[in-house]
Amino acid sequence: MTHELVPSPVRLPVRAGPGQPEPSPALEDLYRGFERELLVPLWTEIGELMPLAPRSKAAPHLWRWRNLVALAERAGQLVPLGRGGERRALALANPSLGGRPFATPTLWAAIQYLMPGEDAPEHRHTQHAFRFVVEGEGVWTVVNGDPIRMSRGDFLPQAGWNWHAHHNAARQPMAWIDGLDIPFAYYTESQFFEFGRDAIDTVEKQTPARSRSERLWSHPGLRPVAHVERAVATPLLAYRWADTDRALAEQLALEAEGCTATLSPGHAAVRFTNPTNGCDALPTMRAEMHRLRGGAASRTRREVGSSVFQVFDGSGSASVGDHRWTVARGDLFVVPSWQPFSIRADGAADGPTLDLFRFSDAPIFEALHAQRAQDEAG
Amino acid sequence: MTHELVPSPVRLPVRAGPGQPEPSPALEDLYRGFERELLVPLWTEIGELMPLAPRSKAAPHLWRWRNLVALAERAGQLVPLGRGGERRALALANPSLGGRPFATPTLWAAIQYLMPGEDAPEHRHTQHAFRFVVEGEGVWTVVNGDPIRMSRGDFLPQAGWNWHAHHNAARQPMAWIDGLDIPFAYYTESQFFEFGRDAIDTVEKQTPARSRSERLWSHPGLRPVAHVERAVATPLLAYRWADTDRALAEQLALEAEGCTATLSPGHAAVRFTNPTNGCDALPTMRAEMHRLRGGAASRTRREVGSSVFQVFDGSGSASVGDHRWTVARGDLFVVPSWQPFSIRADGAADGPTLDLFRFSDAPIFEALHAQRAQDEAG
Amino acid sequence: MTHELVPSPVRLPVRAGPGQPEPSPALEDLYRGFERELLVPLWTEIGELMPLAPRSKAAPHLWRWRNLVALAERAGQLVPLGRGGERRALALANPSLGGRPFATPTLWAAIQYLMPGEDAPEHRHTQHAFRFVVEGEGVWTVVNGDPIRMSRGDFLPQAGWNWHAHHNAARQPMAWIDGLDIPFAYYTESQFFEFGRDAIDTVEKQTPARSRSERLWSHPGLRPVAHVERAVATPLLAYRWADTDRALAEQLALEAEGCTATLSPGHAAVRFTNPTNGCDALPTMRAEMHRLRGGAASRTRREVGSSVFQVFDGSGSASVGDHRWTVARGDLFVVPSWQPFSIRADGAADGPTLDLFRFSDAPIFEALHAQRAQDEAG
Amino acid sequence: MTHELVPSPVRLPVRAGPGQPEPSPALEDLYRGFERELLVPLWTEIGELMPLAPRSKAAPHLWRWRNLVALAERAGQLVPLGRGGERRALALANPSLGGRPFATPTLWAAIQYLMPGEDAPEHRHTQHAFRFVVEGEGVWTVVNGDPIRMSRGDFLPQAGWNWHAHHNAARQPMAWIDGLDIPFAYYTESQFFEFGRDAIDTVEKQTPARSRSERLWSHPGLRPVAHVERAVATPLLAYRWADTDRALAEQLALEAEGCTATLSPGHAAVRFTNPTNGCDALPTMRAEMHRLRGGAASRTRREVGSSVFQVFDGSGSASVGDHRWTVARGDLFVVPSWQPFSIRADGAADGPTLDLFRFSDAPIFEALHAQRAQDEAG
Repeated sequence: MTHELVPSPVRLPVRAGPGQPEPSPALEDLYRGFERELLVPLWTEIGELMPLAPRSKAAPHLWRWRNLVALAERAGQLVPLGRGGERRALALANPSLGGRPFATPTLWAAIQYLMPGEDAPEHRHTQHAFRFVVEGEGVWTVVNGDPIRMSRGDFLPQAGWNWHAHHNAARQPMAWIDGLDIPFAYYTESQFFEFGRDAIDTVEKQTPARSRSERLWSHPGLRPVAHVERAVATPLLAYRWADTDRALAEQLALEAEGCTATLSPGHAAVRFTNPTNGCDALPTMRAEMHRLRGGAASRTRREVGSSVFQVFDGSGSASVGDHRWTVARGDLFVVPSWQPFSIRADGAADGPTLDLFRFSDAPIFEALHAQRAQDEAG
Repeated sequence: MTHELVPSPVRLPVRAGPGQPEPSPALEDLYRGFERELLVPLWTEIGELMPLAPRSKAAPHLWRWRNLVALAERAGQLVPLGRGGERRALALANPSLGGRPFATPTLWAAIQYLMPGEDAPEHRHTQHAFRFVVEGEGVWTVVNGDPIRMSRGDFLPQAGWNWHAHHNAARQPMAWIDGLDIPFAYYTESQFFEFGRDAIDTVEKQTPARSRSERLWSHPGLRPVAHVERAVATPLLAYRWADTDRALAEQLALEAEGCTATLSPGHAAVRFTNPTNGCDALPTMRAEMHRLRGGAASRTRREVGSSVFQVFDGSGSASVGDHRWTVARGDLFVVPSWQPFSIRADGAADGPTLDLFRFSDAPIFEALHAQRAQDEAG
Repeated sequence: MTHELVPSPVRLPVRAGPGQPEPSPALEDLYRGFERELLVPLWTEIGELMPLAPRSKAAPHLWRWRNLVALAERAGQLVPLGRGGERRALALANPSLGGRPFATPTLWAAIQYLMPGEDAPEHRHTQHAFRFVVEGEGVWTVVNGDPIRMSRGDFLPQAGWNWHAHHNAARQPMAWIDGLDIPFAYYTESQFFEFGRDAIDTVEKQTPARSRSERLWSHPGLRPVAHVERAVATPLLAYRWADTDRALAEQLALEAEGCTATLSPGHAAVRFTNPTNGCDALPTMRAEMHRLRGGAASRTRREVGSSVFQVFDGSGSASVGDHRWTVARGDLFVVPSWQPFSIRADGAADGPTLDLFRFSDAPIFEALHAQRAQDEAG
Repeated sequence: MTHELVPSPVRLPVRAGPGQPEPSPALEDLYRGFERELLVPLWTEIGELMPLAPRSKAAPHLWRWRNLVALAERAGQLVPLGRGGERRALALANPSLGGRPFATPTLWAAIQYLMPGEDAPEHRHTQHAFRFVVEGEGVWTVVNGDPIRMSRGDFLPQAGWNWHAHHNAARQPMAWIDGLDIPFAYYTESQFFEFGRDAIDTVEKQTPARSRSERLWSHPGLRPVAHVERAVATPLLAYRWADTDRALAEQLALEAEGCTATLSPGHAAVRFTNPTNGCDALPTMRAEMHRLRGGAASRTRREVGSSVFQVFDGSGSASVGDHRWTVARGDLFVVPSWQPFSIRADGAADGPTLDLFRFSDAPIFEALHAQRAQDEAG
């Protein structure tokens, strides 16, 4: 293997500047040697690779739900669903990530769309996934044979390497969002995939209101003694809106009574967790629901890692880095790493709340002891 | 300090037998020397101290609820409640543990009784505690100022070193059981106690249906983001019967549908757990509710460590070691370490179930990696 | 089963006093009812069971090494070693624990003695054990077939349920101390025992300077990649004096250079740990070596749980509760729970150090989150 | 913000193929809509993003040590060292990663070079780092003020956010390799950096044979009682070759005696671990030393995640994916994710061994429960 025969991918133009050696023919010669040997000096790259704080390659960006739904509907008409394509999913492509379907450097967020009566074929993959439903109903996701109803406000985690298919039992199409750690698995090259059956069976097409997983696991503080092992990801496959809504309402009520229940005044939040260990529902993704009382604002905060928000209900505004948007039901926006962000609800304290679903890559950093956060003066 | 002046507590009669040295005057002399120096040979004690398997000093025993209640009522008339005595509690004294108020070598179980309008004064202790209510209502236990309703079927954990008082807001007396790790703390000499206020205040005498702890924590799979630390013991201070009942009913229904949900055919069970880590609600005590379908029997099982059962509803029979009892609502019985035990519900599969509350010291052994269990041929 | 036929073990004399109900015939009658039903009220027992802080049933006590050795030698002449008796071990019996062979409520400490050429037969038990050698050499303990040299200063842990035998390959007898959690296992009723072969084989009677366990595990910060599982107890079966001595000497030297290395001025200490998790070598017992510079004293400290100290070298004094002793090589003393204790080395700063081996039940309390300690004004 | 004004980074040519919708003008129109809204369908990307198993973007590649050293020497003459450039380090640029200084998608590996008397200025960063020395001596790395000798065979971890500088106290230049998780931190955008003092002080320029960290921590199985907290990364800052060499030699000797000590016949390996928890020395990088007996070969294995190997001594061959190289002292090669690899030592069983240093990103996958490995038929 002689490097001379293939052009080196390394390009090292000699540049003057602080911390850089004085340009000279000898330096030019040295840099050409580096290129031949596939070497890159730290001193030309350190500013990019080792900044004082994260400078995200991703941009803050907002996607309007009505636009996404319109394109998904059109795709429903034009793009058949089946083996190979697997899912009718349209992924948010961060405008600063080169056209790749990555909402942030680690997170995938997509709108998925199923026509009446349609089935998405069964497969499994090591990427962790969840569904969140901002509106509609009628689809059941079938995880390891357990049909799980999907309805407005539900969070439906589905940990890696579980078989899953989707089934629209309704006469209307349905759209929802999928979150996955696809970009993280892609960069770190740790993903496996397996095709399952092309069609699920009749029993799996049943449409129970409550899945088996909920019947076993959705009891506060209770675990089945038959299943006492600690599981890496949650065995509870549906977190229902009624529970989430009640938990958020209670936090605001407790705050009004003088208790420490909210993140900051008027800002309630719950995290979806794995009942077998109290940690995040999925090993690589955090999912939370936030509620701001009318007129209230969150603290302005920076965090290591990135997030995707979807407005669930109400209206307000979001500020991320230099961007500021008014937001309404279904709108999605991304918060890149270490960019300051805050959310504000429209209206008065006794008016409607602003409810937002959020997911992030925080568990990755916590597992590696690399998390950092900083609240800023509003 | 000369040992000759005080009689040694060590008594070492020379005895012949397998593994023992031949009796002789020299051996007598040696044994007297051991006594003087406060030494005891292994070879005289090994059979007692190092048996092939645990041989519990405790006996299986049954206490009838009606008898306990009758004595508690009488105590309600004769024994005032106040500072010093602290609680009108009558502890089960295992017949083989020397008259001490120990249900088993590690567990305290007592009936506590509060007259109408009575308050039990505030204190705190490092011993972990819980209340379980087999019948009645009207008392609120006030933990760190949070009034917690106590009603039939509720499990109310209260971890060590939290301030607590009790308040009977009803016109009837009320009885319930307390479980604590008092004997364990007593043997291992690790307990602290502190007196609190003699009387709780008016706000704490409120009688809300749901405590603040439930409003924050009793949402399946959800955690308040304002409280994401891992807690040693559960922050959820009431596990309500409606939830427990539903979880048990679902397990039997799932079993009927062919799913793995029960411990064995017809035997459902849930464990009360700490939502911040998925472990037992208290660091030293496990608490569970068991339900046997009419006519069903549990497996016969031995476990390291001891348990106390209380029948919550239904009727049936219990077998522990050589003992066998018919049991009905409120009856309490103990299972000593490594004694085989099983439970059987009366009636037919479509008849009433037998529901039992159980608590044990299992978390101690699991924390120290000393747990063992063995299912036996029925 | 009628309680009338057997006398109740419960005895409840009516006594007047603070927190106690007024004596009366009705109260007498009530107490007799408690006895019949095997009940004990909290109000008569609370002072004993729930003290403000631990009040140990054990007493501080000192055993002189020369007396122990003399009795062990005599036992070597009179008491044969073999199956059934298993070990020629003489256990310290705390003077306040009723003549039982318990150094403290949780810990067993014994001198064991092996005559030239003698073998102690193979067995295993779930109780955790270790050997510590204050003087002598010539014995190999054979753990799962691995012969492990025992020499002055060595700490030799041997976790529960491992086969072990001992073999004296020398022409002299040898004595050492054994530490076990026998009392803890006895009270909590969690112990299992199994007899092994009566004699170990020729290969196991080899006398290597280093055991296989050391050759695999005794390399600082290094683990064999073939054994990367986390082990409940240490796989390293010998901690050699040369390493311990060097570590202690370095701490004092680092302290002299101004670094934070010692527990308090002049007081160095190392803990014997499990290289697979950094925790204590054994799940239920902590073992440490302490060194006091000549003239230095430890802090006065109280801790939940009990300890046994053995002087390894040097001379000084120990203070435990109200007791104070001068101590020298081999002397053993116990520190009951929550009793203040301190140690002081004789001599000048440039003179000999006082070295002490210590073991305690601290891991039990840490595993259950019940540890507490308090440094006192000297 | 109107998307029309800025060209979208998304490019979605309509392509026919399995799993793809039939090309049509309507589909063209739909795809243009996706571009405008910054959406990318899953069905065009799934093959790339969700392969059946990891298909690494990185290539197997070998760098010859003599070439690296020659270029580093030349850089020593031409490139001054100082604030801004920070380090005279030349990073391996994987030929398939676009000319970036990334040995693999997650790992940075560089040769660093210090001229006689030179100092590298102090800084700290959250990226974890280590140094490994294949030859030479004379440099001390100063971590938080503790000067740490660097000599042939030493592994010198330096966890994130610790201050560090380097000081060449010798009359010769010295080269070594640095390993960091720079690419991982770069992709996940989680890095912080801080400049320290431009020059370290006189005390820090001392050249002790053993660092303070070793004097406290480099004692097998022993921990200072003054430092019993669990640390996220190792407090031991130098793992010396003498220890590593002995551990490897013992494994081969134990294997010859019939014990389970090696990974496979003739293949010994040790892992550098954190003595406070038994885990990898650094939270994101695994470091190991491997030794193959003359003539022996490792198993052929695939693993999730990537590795960098450096030959420390001996000669042999390495096979990675479709590549096969003969290797000798200092040569570096990379193993991309899920590529099969094996190593073989030249010579006879009684000849010299082949010793290799290896580091990888395995702890990332283990922390997230995403690890997988597979041994293949040789």
